[in-house]
Formats: sequence, structure tokens, C-alpha cells
Amino acid sequence: MLHFLEPRSVVLIGVTREVGAGAYNNLEILLRYGYQGRIYVVHPEVAEILGIKTYSQVSDLPEAPDLAVISVGRENVLPVFAACAEHGIRHVVVISQGFADSDERGRRLQTEMATLARAGNVRVLGPNTLGIINAFNGFSTSFVDIPRDPSPPPLTIVVQSGSFQHGSECFTGGYGKGIDVGNASDVDFVDVLEYLEHDPQTRIIVLHIEGMQRGREFLRTAGRVAFRKPVIVFKTGRSSAGAKAALSHSGSLAGEDAVYDAAFDRAGLIRVRNMIELRAVCQAFLHFHSMSGPKLAVVTITGAAGIITADACQDYGLELSPFPESVREELKNLHPAWHRLNNPADVWPLTAASGSLGDVFKHTVRLLLADDEVDAVFGIGIALHSPLHQDLDMAAVGREISAASDRRKPVALWLYGGDQARVASALAQTEHVACFDSIDEAIMGLSACRRYYESLRKKQDLEKKSCPQQAESARPAAPRMAEGVYAGKEASKLLRHYHIATAQEELTSGAAAAVRAAGKIGYPVAL
Amino acid sequence: MLHFLEPRSVVLIGVTREVGAGAYNNLEILLRYGYQGRIYVVHPEVAEILGIKTYSQVSDLPEAPDLAVISVGRENVLPVFAACAEHGIRHVVVISQGFADSDERGRRLQTEMATLARAGNVRVLGPNTLGIINAFNGFSTSFVDIPRDPSPPPLTIVVQSGSFQHGSECFTGGYGKGIDVGNASDVDFVDVLEYLEHDPQTRIIVLHIEGMQRGREFLRTAGRVAFRKPVIVFKTGRSSAGAKAALSHSGSLAGEDAVYDAAFDRAGLIRVRNMIELRAVCQAFLHFHSMSGPKLAVVTITGAAGIITADACQDYGLELSPFPESVREELKNLHPAWHRLNNPADVWPLTAASGSLGDVFKHTVRLLLADDEVDAVFGIGIALHSPLHQDLDMAAVGREISAASDRRKPVALWLYGGDQARVASALAQTEHVACFDSIDEAIMGLSACRRYYESLRKKQDLEKKSCPQQAESARPAAPRMAEGVYAGKEASKLLRHYHIATAQEELTSGAAAAVRAAGKIGYPVAL
Repeated sequence: MLHFLEPRSVVLIGVTREVGAGAYNNLEILLRYGYQGRIYVVHPEVAEILGIKTYSQVSDLPEAPDLAVISVGRENVLPVFAACAEHGIRHVVVISQGFADSDERGRRLQTEMATLARAGNVRVLGPNTLGIINAFNGFSTSFVDIPRDPSPPPLTIVVQSGSFQHGSECFTGGYGKGIDVGNASDVDFVDVLEYLEHDPQTRIIVLHIEGMQRGREFLRTAGRVAFRKPVIVFKTGRSSAGAKAALSHSGSLAGEDAVYDAAFDRAGLIRVRNMIELRAVCQAFLHFHSMSGPKLAVVTITGAAGIITADACQDYGLELSPFPESVREELKNLHPAWHRLNNPADVWPLTAASGSLGDVFKHTVRLLLADDEVDAVFGIGIALHSPLHQDLDMAAVGREISAASDRRKPVALWLYGGDQARVASALAQTEHVACFDSIDEAIMGLSACRRYYESLRKKQDLEKKSCPQQAESARPAAPRMAEGVYAGKEASKLLRHYHIATAQEELTSGAAAAVRAAGKIGYPVAL
Repeated sequence: MLHFLEPRSVVLIGVTREVGAGAYNNLEILLRYGYQGRIYVVHPEVAEILGIKTYSQVSDLPEAPDLAVISVGRENVLPVFAACAEHGIRHVVVISQGFADSDERGRRLQTEMATLARAGNVRVLGPNTLGIINAFNGFSTSFVDIPRDPSPPPLTIVVQSGSFQHGSECFTGGYGKGIDVGNASDVDFVDVLEYLEHDPQTRIIVLHIEGMQRGREFLRTAGRVAFRKPVIVFKTGRSSAGAKAALSHSGSLAGEDAVYDAAFDRAGLIRVRNMIELRAVCQAFLHFHSMSGPKLAVVTITGAAGIITADACQDYGLELSPFPESVREELKNLHPAWHRLNNPADVWPLTAASGSLGDVFKHTVRLLLADDEVDAVFGIGIALHSPLHQDLDMAAVGREISAASDRRKPVALWLYGGDQARVASALAQTEHVACFDSIDEAIMGLSACRRYYESLRKKQDLEKKSCPQQAESARPAAPRMAEGVYAGKEASKLLRHYHIATAQEELTSGAAAAVRAAGKIGYPVAL
């Protein structure tokens, strides 16, 4: 994978001679993105493009570059690919569309290319891909121009669509490396995961999966990688994939998705259901490094948002911790006699005595973080764009909370008011403290952290007790079964092994036997 | 209500003498917000605040202003309130906290104030409220400074927390009028709805409801108002309300919320579950004025987003329409032989022939809008902040689609890429075309439109057949039952009348009778 992400030299084949607005010229994009390696261009007709001398064919190149990027029409891909292999190029990105993503001929072309690749010992990324965007070294195979992130986050996205690379604002937020596996004719999720497992620039991995070929290897590899870093999975096609597989058989639609759920869960991957949750979960893992349980303490300047938070906790599987008596005691001089602090803790009435909302907020959050019954704190504050509210600097409050943090417990913030975006951006790099765009996103993010760190702890406990091999064998062995279609008891056995919920069952003959069996199983019973 | 929202004169009681940052001075806010009516201030100690002459007591005022705004400590509220009533003031906003929102004494104070109000024929908004913000005339009782919207949208929010008024960016987006009913000791949702029903500045109503006293009147009134304009309900406390009602009885938690669901649905109100859905649905109703069915056509420049859309349609109850053969035919010269247009329709491969993504996009959307099988179109495009992509002006595309619209069918857009916010803001006023921040939000918004206009159509059909009174009586009458606790058959009858799902049931004695009954009902059966 290193040659795909950090090629020392690259040849582009299929560059348009047009430049500027509307040209989608990938050479122009590569130059703008700031790549520092050697760039070659193959073009049969013009002598140079954007000041880069061109070669009329691959065999004319003075070296075998680390990587070739092919974006010619699909009918020309195979000859060009063969020329690359012939010239000793061992890594090729095929941008071109019209392969397994299209018709019968496309599928055949893709198979032929795979055969060529194996024969020539060439690794292929694509076809039907936008390829690589690496903000660390400025390498990009994209034909869409996006600004290079000057301080790339340690988050790598492995996707099946360039929209995640070009529209990261809506998907994951910023990323450091983006790898589009496209049709995954050769390089697939397993290959990329093996590389990312030990990549020091990657602390968080996001997978956008539409389909998968090597399911078993994927789960084994992803499960191993998830032991080292969070692996977030956005598996799409929940609806159409089921429909394709099961056609008119409506029941199996949910069934197939439940299989993915169970498999991802077993491997310790964090599955997200939609793009809103995806962004929230990425934001959480970028800032939070631990969360030991589900118990959340909420500090709010408005009771209404506290109630909305309680609803969200129920929706996403977190709990409100009991409000610590010690904290109530500590703050008793601040709040009026008629006010009682609970969880969610409405601290607005405390400002009358202290005068400063920021101080009250900060103080309460810190006291709650120190309590053993609290696994994380969620703070709800206001960020207003008015000279009359300049005294309340929530960015400073967030930084002070971060500085005082013992690093174990996440502090999620949701700020409302017209200055929210500015404060959130000021806190973009703050460790252990993260701003979210809504209450639901904050709770989704915390919930994912909780699930991940819990699964990690379980794995670590298992490892402590035994060496990894033993831990693996301590798990009941998967039933050995031949390939084929299973029904009845055999099917249930397999489903149960993979923790997929099934009903208890008993095969009987006659009414009396059925009633006996029902008594054994317990009601309700279906026949 | 008019005196609350459009007072010609107002007296503020409890104004702090401090001004500027951190003062939370509601006189300062009112002046900044641009109120043009007569302002009086009652203050026992200083002669003027911010250039406004003060009166030492209410009885000194030269007139009885249309409205009084009280924000003194709770122990002083009742004497001040009595003085207002005595002076002939008939409308009072009580900002002060510490009433039914706090302890026993607070509850008693609130009851006493209600008694005073009835005796003096005074209407009260609050206590525990931020009161009124009216962007149309610049009237505000808030102690938090927010900018006044120069072109207020026809959306009114009726809430139980000022956070919706100050943080509308996160909740509803902009609004024209914001009314916080607070503890609703007197003026409540029913009163406000009666006013909004005929308010020409209100086309969309959003209710944030934590609790409700006059449930029956509310449903009757809201149902009537929903006949004229969409009423969106954000009922919070789904979890804690249930917990309070049912304590350890876990099953009844969902039950109570199902009752709200059924009641809102019967009244034709649009319920939203969280703040993300709230904002999406407001955005949809601001732009869309009709939607005749669930069938959506999707035009996308990336297949991946099309798949995510299909998932979201399933999640939120819309359907993908069949792709019209006529449109496929119309576009056949544009797409390469290997590409087949479906729904979602990936139009990226069509740009190779036409050269302009904007033109292809616009053309396809228009063709789909003209098809009878399509109830709405969802377009997925890109908005990039780069000189290399200046040729693609999605704001212009959106405006052209709007101009060509026959107004019946919504066009939702989701744009990704770094220039998304700018384009969305450029399309903020465009009719029939609306930009959303994510695919899920677009589908949530369209789905709410579909539910509302479907319920409206059903009501109208009913009205056409008969006069309203007859329509009401055509509905099966609610079972007449005394107040109290119902169980068994009686309870089920009631639940079924209100369309709350129940199981079929039969009371039997002995195993044989039970088996007979089970046969009649059909399996599965629980005892």
C-alpha cells in the first residue's frame, strides 16, 4: 500500500489537455495539492501539459515509476495497463468507470485486467475509483480540486466513493488519508486494513462499505485492527442489498442486515447507520481516548435541553448517573434555596450568586469529572455573537476543562446561539473536550466511545487471562458445515453461534406433543 | 395574544441598573432589538437607566401600558403583579423563576398569582419564561441579545424554553415570532394556537412541548389549526415522562409515548423525535407547499449517495419511484452505452457527452418533475470552493429549477463539498427548492411533507363529502366511559378507538376453551 499512498514517482495516463475551470484535469489537481515526487505524463498528441513534458507512450518513460494512474476510456484501459506491467510498474490506480459497475462487457474487462495483474505481479486500486488523497504528503489522484488540510487529523477513510473524499465536511469531517477502493478488483478492505494497522499516521479508521468479497478475512483482519484503533463502519445498501439478495422474500431483508450487525459487533467494529451518526462518531474518537462505562452527568444552562438529552440517552444507550451528593453539597452556597441540582443539572439559577456563567459551568463540570460514578460529562452552554455577551467565552471554558482533565473521561459540549460555529472551531484541536452540532450527535458520539472501549476492555481481559491463541480457542468453535443452504435446526444452530437472535424451537408430531414442547419452551409459542 | 406580541406600550419591572457585557439587562436588549413602542421602567432606586426615565412604583405610571414584564425575585413577584392589576394592566409576562418549576412554596406562589390574575382579569405569560421575541416589530422581552432577522420567515415557535429562541440555528432555523409559555400558569398552547390560526405572519407553527394540562382542548384546537397550516410538534421528555408515570413498570414507558403518537397523528400534527429532525422538517415546510405521494426520484452525481438515499427512504417511509422509460429515452444520447439510468439515477457518466454537470443535472431533474409517477425529486450535487470548479454554479442550477417548477412538487437538494454552506445560503429564499445538510435530513423533511399533505387531503376529502359537523359525527363515537383506571377488554376497546395497536384477546376458562379461542384468533398466541 505504501506505493499507492507515498509514491516517489507517478505517471498519469489519460490527462486531458484542457486546464482550468471545468477541465477536471488530474495533473493540475496534483500540482495544486502540493505533491513533491517525480511526475510523468503519457499523452499521444501534445508535447507538454502545464509545463510537464509528456511521453507519447509508457515504454518511453525513463524509469518505472512507483505508481501509474490510468484514466482513459474503458476500451483503452487494458492495452495501457499491459504496457505499464510490461514497463515494470507494479502499482496501478484505474480511475476509469464502466467495469463491474456497469454491464456484462465491463465485468469481463475487469476480470481480464485482474488476470493481467496477477500475471505481471501488479497491484491494482480500482477500477471506478478516485484513488488516493494523502494530505500528509500532498499526493492526490483526484480529478476534483479540494484544499489540502495543513494539519491533517489521524483519521483515514477507506471508501467506495470519492464523495467521501470531496465532501468530508458532511461525512467524517477532515481526514488525513483517503483511499477509494472503487470496484475492489484487487486491492480491497483487507489489504488496506493490513497497512493501516501499523500506520503511525492513522489512529482512527473509517470504512464505507457497499459490498464485500472476502468477508471472513475482512472480519478477522478488522477485528485484529480494532484491537489497536477504532474501526468505524458505515455499511450502506441496508435496503437495496437486502432486496437484491432476497427479491420478493421480504422477511430476509432485515435478516441480512442483522447478520452484518452481528458480525461487526463480534469483531468489535463500531457500526454507524447514517451520515449524521458517522460524523458525530468520528468527532468523538478524534477527541476522546477512553470511556469506562455508560454513566453520563449532564450540566446544562437550560432545563429543556436536559430533558432532550435524557431522551437521547435512552435512544442511544447511555444512562444518566445519579447526581453525587458531595457535588450538591459543594455547590450549595451557589444555588437559591428553591433549586435542587439533579442530573441533568440545570446550573442557570446558580449564576445569580456567582455572577459568572462560565465559572459556574467549569466548576460543576470539574466536580462531576472527579466523581467515581461519572463516566463522561455532557455540557450544554450558549455561545452568543453579541458585545453584550462577550464576558462568556465558552472556548476558554472548554480549554480550561481540557487542561484540568485527567484524560480518562470525555467531556462533550453542545453550544447553541449564533456563535456556536466559531467556538466549535476554536475547540477543534482540544483534547478530551469536543463540540457537537446537536444534542443527539453528542450522545451518539459518546455512545460509540462507550461501545468501543467496552469491547476493547473485554478483549484485553481475555488476553490477560490467556495468550491470544488460547483466547481464540476458548471461544466455542464455529460449527463445521459444508457450503450450501441451511434451514430448521441447523440454521438456528449457526445463527446462535454468531449471536444472532433466534426463537427456541422443537420439532414435534401431533397436538399433544406440541403442547408438551410448548410447556418446555415457555409461552408465547408459534406453530 | 396581540397585546403580548404587539404591545403599543410596555413597562419593565426588575431591570438591573448594570449595562453592557454580562448585565443581561432586558431594557438594553429591547432597545437594541428595535422596539418602536412606548417603554416605561419601574425602579425604586435610580432615576434613569440607559436614558429611559424610571418610575419608583407602578402606580406612578402615566398610563396603563398594554403589557408589563416582571423579572424581580420570586418573593417580590406577587406584590408587583397586584400593583400592575390595580393600575389596569391586563397583560403580564413573568420572567422570574422559582414557581411550579421548583419547590412547594413556588407551586403555592404560582397558584396565588393565578387567583390574582383571574380576579383582576389579567392574562399571564409565564412564570419561568423568556417571553416574547417578535422579529417583525422588534419587540423582545428577552434578557439575551440576539440579532433581529431583517426578513423574518413566516414560522412561529411556541416553546417551553428560551433556548429555542436564542439557539434557533440548532433547532428550527430562523423564526419570525417566538413565544415561550414557560410554566403555562395561564396562557398555554391552546391560547397561542387560537391566535396563530388566523395570524397572517404565521404559515408554519412549531410547538416544543414538555407537559400539557388541557390535553383535550389542545388536540381539538391543534387539529383545527393543522387544517390551515402545518403544526410541527417536538414533544420532549419521552423517557423521563414515561419513567415518572410508570416507575419500575418498564413496559408502560413506550406505552405512554405511543399515546402521544396516536393523539398527534389523529389530530394531523407532525411529530418530530429530535432536534435534527425538527430543523429538517422546518426547512422542508418553509420551501415546499405540496407533495402528493411517497414516490421520490433521485438524481445523483455519485452512486454511493444514491444507495445512502435508498436506505434513508426505507428509514423514513418514502419510496423510490420507477425510473420513467420516457426520461431514459430522452437522455439516451447523453449516456455511454454501458450506463443504465435507474432510480437513484447516477448522472455523472452523462457529463462526458454534455460537458456540463449543471446542465445534465438540471435537465434530468426537470424531466423527472414532469413525470406523473414522481411526487418529489431529490438531487445530490457538489459545491466546491475552487477556481477549477467555478463553472459549476449549483445556486444558479437551484434557482433555474425553482423558476421552471409548477409548484406542486418539492425539489430537495443535498450538496457536498466545501462550498455547501454558501450555496445553501444562496438558496435560502428559493421556493420549491431547498438545501439540506445531509441526505437523512432531506428525506426526513420530504417525509414530513408527505405525511402532512396526505393527512390534509384526507381531511379535505371528508369535508367535501359532508359539512364539518357531519364529518365529525361520521367518525365512530369515542366510547363513553367514566374517569378511572381501565384494564382488560375495556382498556383494549379504548386503545383501539384511538388507533393504538393492541393484540386480539379472548377471555376463556380451561385449556380446551383456550385452544379453541387460539384457533379463532390465529397463532402466535400468548396466555
